Amino acid sequence: MSYRNFPMVPRVVFGRGSFNQLEEIISPKRLNVNAPFIFLVDDVFKGNAWLTSRIPLAYDDKVLYISANEEPKTSQVDSLVEEIILTSRQGTSGIIGIGGGTILDLAKAVSIMINNEGEAKNYQGWDLVKNPAVYHVGVPTLSGTGAEVSRTCVLTGPEKKLGINSDYTPFDQVILDPELTKDVPKNQWFYTGMDCYIHCVESLTGTFLNAFSRSYGDMALQLCKEIFLGDNLSVNDAQDKLMMASWHGGMSIAYSQVGVAHAMSYGLSYLLGTKHGIGNCIVFDQLGEFYPEGVALFKDMVKKHDIYIPTGICAHLDDSEFDKMINISLGLVPLWENALGKNWQKIITREKLKSLYKKM
Amino acid sequence: MSYRNFPMVPRVVFGRGSFNQLEEIISPKRLNVNAPFIFLVDDVFKGNAWLTSRIPLAYDDKVLYISANEEPKTSQVDSLVEEIILTSRQGTSGIIGIGGGTILDLAKAVSIMINNEGEAKNYQGWDLVKNPAVYHVGVPTLSGTGAEVSRTCVLTGPEKKLGINSDYTPFDQVILDPELTKDVPKNQWFYTGMDCYIHCVESLTGTFLNAFSRSYGDMALQLCKEIFLGDNLSVNDAQDKLMMASWHGGMSIAYSQVGVAHAMSYGLSYLLGTKHGIGNCIVFDQLGEFYPEGVALFKDMVKKHDIYIPTGICAHLDDSEFDKMINISLGLVPLWENALGKNWQKIITREKLKSLYKKM
Repeated sequence: MSYRNFPMVPRVVFGRGSFNQLEEIISPKRLNVNAPFIFLVDDVFKGNAWLTSRIPLAYDDKVLYISANEEPKTSQVDSLVEEIILTSRQGTSGIIGIGGGTILDLAKAVSIMINNEGEAKNYQGWDLVKNPAVYHVGVPTLSGTGAEVSRTCVLTGPEKKLGINSDYTPFDQVILDPELTKDVPKNQWFYTGMDCYIHCVESLTGTFLNAFSRSYGDMALQLCKEIFLGDNLSVNDAQDKLMMASWHGGMSIAYSQVGVAHAMSYGLSYLLGTKHGIGNCIVFDQLGEFYPEGVALFKDMVKKHDIYIPTGICAHLDDSEFDKMINISLGLVPLWENALGKNWQKIITREKLKSLYKKM
Repeated sequence: MSYRNFPMVPRVVFGRGSFNQLEEIISPKRLNVNAPFIFLVDDVFKGNAWLTSRIPLAYDDKVLYISANEEPKTSQVDSLVEEIILTSRQGTSGIIGIGGGTILDLAKAVSIMINNEGEAKNYQGWDLVKNPAVYHVGVPTLSGTGAEVSRTCVLTGPEKKLGINSDYTPFDQVILDPELTKDVPKNQWFYTGMDCYIHCVESLTGTFLNAFSRSYGDMALQLCKEIFLGDNLSVNDAQDKLMMASWHGGMSIAYSQVGVAHAMSYGLSYLLGTKHGIGNCIVFDQLGEFYPEGVALFKDMVKKHDIYIPTGICAHLDDSEFDKMINISLGLVPLWENALGKNWQKIITREKLKSLYKKM
């Protein structure tokens, strides 16, 4: 019997406008004037002075704008690390990720790979990281996926979509400023929020759950219901609460796991590049047999907010393509075990998965 | 506008039997073979082999059994520190507190004072600590007060009852093993659990609250209701959930404060030595005008569990004694401000406090 010694983010600020405290927070962490802070920023903020004018640049600090249109890749991490190391010969003071899950996961991966040899793909898995990451800060500008609090950073590599899960992965500091989410487009707000809702359902109905994870999952689920099915929240309250739901939802994974929706959406994402939030929605919409209550509520939320959930994205795939998705999905053993127990392979066959994918 | 950069416990294990992992967790933290770990253990466990045989002693490590019959004192911290420094000439590898809030607060204070000059009483207040504490681990054996997660350690000094509030106060590691609470006497279980319940009510109805603290407070309150008013929990589930309620209740104070009950019970505790949990119950029982809903539910819980809440403990006090309690209580400005807003002094006069104390 051995329980995970879970690493928590050791410092967190919460508050509308708390992004203004970034300079005060990172200044004491500067190693020397030749060791820059590197800001990885979602390129939707390029030219947005409201946000970018508050990025505290000094000395050789640099902003790298990054598109989040594609899921983060191991090769992308490797080239970012190469670029950063080449231009920071006296070390890097820290990596600050400002964006949604894609940017936050890249920031975590880059901060690890600056201090670890070789290529990012070699660290996909569990506890393969040898050296501590450089100081890294997460500033979410989207709420839902929980990347700001999780012990992983999910990357698509040449062979698999899998996270770098390690005790060095979590951020050293997180700044939760719900105001930063004010301009998220409605569809994206919904898809990302549903990522939180879906992983709560998966965690709370899973076989791995204990009282620690249940309490965080219950809290996040309650917040999601209030936000997506209630009618009484102000815009600001809804932003504040969704940011907390994302945070607690991420914590609920400490002693739990996600389940069928994540296992299958990783397949979609690997083959078709489907983004994580919308991918989970496309999959979850078809999972009534596994999560009857959760899927029913999800359909209510979709209807209430008049959201389009794509279908037919697998309609024209050939057998070898289905095989690729199925291989990725079946490789995620802990997710299936959490969802369906030790004997999950009796329930989930290749044929079963194919028939589910065909509905999507 | 500046929000607190809240320090979270960076490592936590949760699970029944997780206490068995203590050795594996602390071993890598040993500075050298002459720098002992000091275990501060509640003396109710003296002779209890079920627990003590699992304390992993090596080299010069030492167990100090401590009575929790009285609230922790600054002078007690000073003498513990002197004793530890005298016998650990090559440094101290860490302080491990095993017990309820009294022992955990002592462990936090001792770990700070080993690395900071002078007497503990000089550090009572906010952010007065200069040097980081030595590595310290908290292992709660009682659930409710939230000492395992808080940024303070409350001490009674020659002039005041007040915490050492600092970024160095929180534990570096917490082990949450609900099994360790199995032999808590019923009254103590109730009084300590109510400490959690009461500080949730105070936090959730306070003026300082934001969405971060509200979400933790809501969760802890919900758990308390389930535990103290529900009928469906197994003994183990109730232990597990109360340990989580304590944890989340402590977190809810991050951007909030306690209120009237704590402000008044500090007075009782300072003058009469009333223990914190029962003191809060004695006070809260009389606070219907400030917390109508919360006090009504509290009375239901008292009745359901057939608990005796003492009265008449102030019956024979003289005016100078009332004055002492009132001075201590009025000194806790942030608590009053949280409870009643900026103009709290218009509501809470010395006469008002005296009339409330007289009912207790």
